[in-house]
Order: sequence, then structure tokens, then C-alpha cells
Amino acid sequence: MSEPVTLVEVTRGPFVESRHFGHAVIVRSDGEIVEAWGDPTRIVLPRSSAKMIQALPLMESGAGAHLSQEQLALACASHSGEQRHVDKVSDWLTELGLDEHALCCGPQVSRDDALREDMIRRRLEPSRIHNNCSGKHAGFLTLAKHLGASLDYVDLDNPVQKAVRRAFEETCGEESPAFGIDGCSAPSFAASLTGIARAMAGFAAAGKGHSARDKAMVSLREAMIAHPELVSGKGRCCAALMYAAKGQAAVKTGAEGFFVAILPGLGLGVALKIEDGATRASEAAMAAILVRLGVVEAENPSVEAFLAPRIENWDGLHVGDVRACRTLLD
Amino acid sequence: MSEPVTLVEVTRGPFVESRHFGHAVIVRSDGEIVEAWGDPTRIVLPRSSAKMIQALPLMESGAGAHLSQEQLALACASHSGEQRHVDKVSDWLTELGLDEHALCCGPQVSRDDALREDMIRRRLEPSRIHNNCSGKHAGFLTLAKHLGASLDYVDLDNPVQKAVRRAFEETCGEESPAFGIDGCSAPSFAASLTGIARAMAGFAAAGKGHSARDKAMVSLREAMIAHPELVSGKGRCCAALMYAAKGQAAVKTGAEGFFVAILPGLGLGVALKIEDGATRASEAAMAAILVRLGVVEAENPSVEAFLAPRIENWDGLHVGDVRACRTLLD
Repeated sequence: MSEPVTLVEVTRGPFVESRHFGHAVIVRSDGEIVEAWGDPTRIVLPRSSAKMIQALPLMESGAGAHLSQEQLALACASHSGEQRHVDKVSDWLTELGLDEHALCCGPQVSRDDALREDMIRRRLEPSRIHNNCSGKHAGFLTLAKHLGASLDYVDLDNPVQKAVRRAFEETCGEESPAFGIDGCSAPSFAASLTGIARAMAGFAAAGKGHSARDKAMVSLREAMIAHPELVSGKGRCCAALMYAAKGQAAVKTGAEGFFVAILPGLGLGVALKIEDGATRASEAAMAAILVRLGVVEAENPSVEAFLAPRIENWDGLHVGDVRACRTLLD
Repeated sequence: MSEPVTLVEVTRGPFVESRHFGHAVIVRSDGEIVEAWGDPTRIVLPRSSAKMIQALPLMESGAGAHLSQEQLALACASHSGEQRHVDKVSDWLTELGLDEHALCCGPQVSRDDALREDMIRRRLEPSRIHNNCSGKHAGFLTLAKHLGASLDYVDLDNPVQKAVRRAFEETCGEESPAFGIDGCSAPSFAASLTGIARAMAGFAAAGKGHSARDKAMVSLREAMIAHPELVSGKGRCCAALMYAAKGQAAVKTGAEGFFVAILPGLGLGVALKIEDGATRASEAAMAAILVRLGVVEAENPSVEAFLAPRIENWDGLHVGDVRACRTLLD
């Protein structure tokens, strides 16, 4: 096992004030590693970066056959809890004959400044629908109802999680050693970083077969690419990189410095983990890898905003920069 | 130069999900290193951990002779922008015949939930007085007026910053190679981590001499120890550790994973830097070092809250833990 390597530096004045170490791997659809940094065998919890895998049983089972592409994007989303996200998930629950109380994810404050402040002024508490994972949970509920299973769908023994685990292990090509409980109370199954990238390469290569999995992978990948701001939100890194990639990438962030990419044109999958869990670093590192692979351009301002964000202080002065290391770019 | 070492781990389920690397050093008042982890020669920007050094010229010059102990605590503070902090800094500016527009620090939203929400409801914008550094800046203004200097007190050529740099280099025992601009627009002078710890050991040992510096160090150290919640805020790590140490420690956090401690009873200074800049790690590491040195007890719940904080998810489930590594504790 090799140690993590420096992937991102944070400067202030003439100094490198902080450094982020991590691991990254690019995998072909045949499962072979194209390039790796740090330790691609590191066992990781992909957290929200696994949402497209967690949505596979919804589609493979036929439970999601009637869902709109927007709903599929939300099933794969860590959304910002903007009004449009809340409204669409709310409508989805109504279609199921359910309401927010059926969601197992806890309440979370909206990331949308205007909505959050409006709710404070109106003394409204955040609901479970505002939780960034509420679309994924609506997908879990849709599958649970289709299977006639208990609606306690985050339980490890529930048919929903059994199907998720099976899809996870099959797409990663590994048995999952164990799991952690995610921010939204669903299990986050563990795999090697290469396993996660292998699953993403599977999504990238899908479209040539006729299996339920092949079709599910294409549906979810295309839904993400068609609706970048439903997968994330206005101004967010996932949306910026997907817009910049113009259909050549479906990308997804995860908590604790995780990030994955599905690159259909290249038939590649990417997974990276910042060892310390920092989002500023996972975003810069993923932007750099997409630049390296020619999927986005470093000069595109909406890429640059995450590849090399300026650090401004409370008075708006430019005091430092976050920058991906040359080892990722060259 | 040695690499940083693992100081803090973050677990989820059976896994170490993330790790924080860093450097730490404990120094005696004669400047000798007692113990070190990682690279004690790393050149660092101490950020807000240097506030007691930045306040030395205020006291040594006599400019602060009339200030209350509460004002001295605020001069060393990264306060939470609670109403009491805002009121006291506001009164201080009035004493100087000035108002918030004299502050060079930018406006910052209060960390106090109730005040922040109240301001949103009343559609009030945060002011420069809410900035966590406003007490330090009131101190700079007090010194600038005393010296008859321009009130552009964050300029490197202003007599205020010249005096700060001199005090910084003398207490660290090193020439500062350069500086970065801090979040509040003041220069943050660089030194080695050992240099910063040496300065803190100087504060710890002060009280035996008759120099203006010796007296200034005692005044500032004792003001911090007497008013932990003015130096930080309700529920904050600095306050919790200072209360738990019962007069045996003055501690101060800084941005980008910095933390220092002045330990008068032991005559020791401590400085640590988390390489990735994470506050959760700098807090756990400082708590661990204070436990190691016998200054606080690990079993004290208010210490444990920072030494080994539980990670709870959006639904309040205990899903993981932050924990300082045994290398710091044993």
C-alpha cells in the first residue's frame, strides 16, 4: 500500500500554506488501470459518488420505467435543496402516495441562500425533502413499493439495500468488505478506489448491450448529463464540469473528498479520494483530471473556478489560490 | 525536511475514512524542543494564532495601559461575533472617537446562530465589527492613534505593522522570510513552527522580569485565561480547553489548521499545523497534546467534545468519530 500523494496545494502570499494528499485512478472499461496516483487499492467509502450505482436496481427492476429523466437525475443527485429540487421531489412523493415523513434522510438546511434566508424569515424549519439526498430516497421508496418491500428501505436486510449491494459489488467487480452509515442514514458500501472507478468505466462503456443493466446505466448517465443542475445545483462544481464537458462527462461529488467521473466518449471511469476529506481539493483534482483527459478546457472560466479558485478574504482581496498539482495536469 | 505525520483520523463504521497529517512541536522557554511530530522546521503562517504577538506593541508602547482586561482578551480574539463581542468592540471604537468604518477588516457574518438569524429577519447586513478579528483591529487602531501614525494600520510600512513584525521576529527568535495577507487584511508574518512555539514559550515563562515585554506578555496571557469566551465564543474549542485547564493554559486557534498553546505552569509553548488546513483536526490534536501534558483531562466532556468528537448525521445518528492518534497521546 503506497501513501497518498500531494494532489492540491493552497497558496497564500509566496507560501504553500496547506497541501492536500490523495489518491486517484483512471480505469478502462475492461477494468484495467490507465493511470493512478497514490494508492488505488485504498478501501474507500464512496458516499454520494455511488448514487448512480445505488439507482441501478430502481431501473433494472422496471420500477423506474415510468420516471421522467428529471426524476432519474434527482435519484443520482446531491442537490442544493433549491425550490425546484424540493418541488420535484415533493411531487414525486405525491405520485407514490407518500409525503416527506416516508423519507429516512434527516432534515437539512437548504444550500440556496435566498431560500434559506426566506425560510428563516418565515420561521420555517428545513424538512427531509430539503436533504441533498431526498431524490435518491424517493428512488429507494419507488423501488421498495415496486418490490412490495417494507418502507424501512435503509435497513441492510431490506430488499432495496440487498439489491443495491449486489449492483455495487457486481459493477465494482469486488466483494464489499463492510459499510458505513451515510449522512442520509443509507449504507455506504466500501470498495477499493479502483473498484469504484471500474464501476464508473462500466457506466461509460454502456450502450452497446441489451441487458437491463446496460440500459439502466445509459438511462442514468444520460439523465445526469441532461440535467447537471438537478444533480447538484446552481453554481456547483458538478454542474460546472458537466456543462463544460458538453455531454462528454457525468461527474458526481461525494462527502469526505470523494469524486467520480463517467467519460462515455473515452470509455473511461475516474475515482478520487482526498485523504483529509476536503471538498476544495476533490473539486480541483477532478477538474484537473478532466483537463488532462481533454474533456474540459482549463481556460473555460467555469472550469477555472474549481481548478484554480481564488481565495478572497472578508474584504474581497485576492490573498491566495487553490491549485491542482502539475502531477495531475502534465 | 521530514514529511507531515498522521495526527488525527476520522472513522465511519469499521473504516478510517479520512486522515489528517500535520506537524506539532513543544518548546521550552529556553527555546529547546521538548517533543516534535512531523517537521518542526516547516515555514508556516500562524494566522490568528499570532494575535497575542500582534498585541504586544499595543502593551509595550503604553498605548494599551488604560485598556480593560476584557479589551485585552478581545485584542487576542477570534471571536464569534456574538452580541457581547460586537457591543464591546463597538464601545472601544467609540472610546477612540471612531466607528466601524475605521476597521480594515471586511464584514463577516456572525457565527452566533440566534444573532445571525435575527439579523436576516431584520434584513441587517453584517458589519466589520462582526468580523472575528475586530478586537485585534481595535487594538491596532489604539496603537496607531497613540503613535500618531496613519490609520491605514494594515499597511506593511505603517509603524503599527513595523512594530508587530519586530515583536514577531524577536519572540520567534527568527527573521520572518515574508508574509501572507490574512482574512482580515493584516499581514500574517511567516516563521518556522518551532519559532512560533518558541514565542508561546516566551509568553508561558513571562512574569519573572521587569521589561515592558515581560509585563505585556503577562497581561495578555492573563486576559486570555480570564476571558475564554471573549477570546473565542460560547461552545468554541479555545474556550472549552481554557476552562478545562483552569488557568494552566492560554490557547488560540488560527485559520488553515493552526493552533498554539501557552502553558505558564509548565513553562512550555506549543504550536501545531494541520497540513491540509482542517479545523476539526487542529482542535483534536491540540486537545490531545494538552491531555498528554496533563493540563486537561481526556474524560472531561468539554475536552472530549474536541478530542474525540462524534460525527452525527442529518438524522442525529452516531455514524463515526474524529480521534487524535495515539502518537500524540501516549
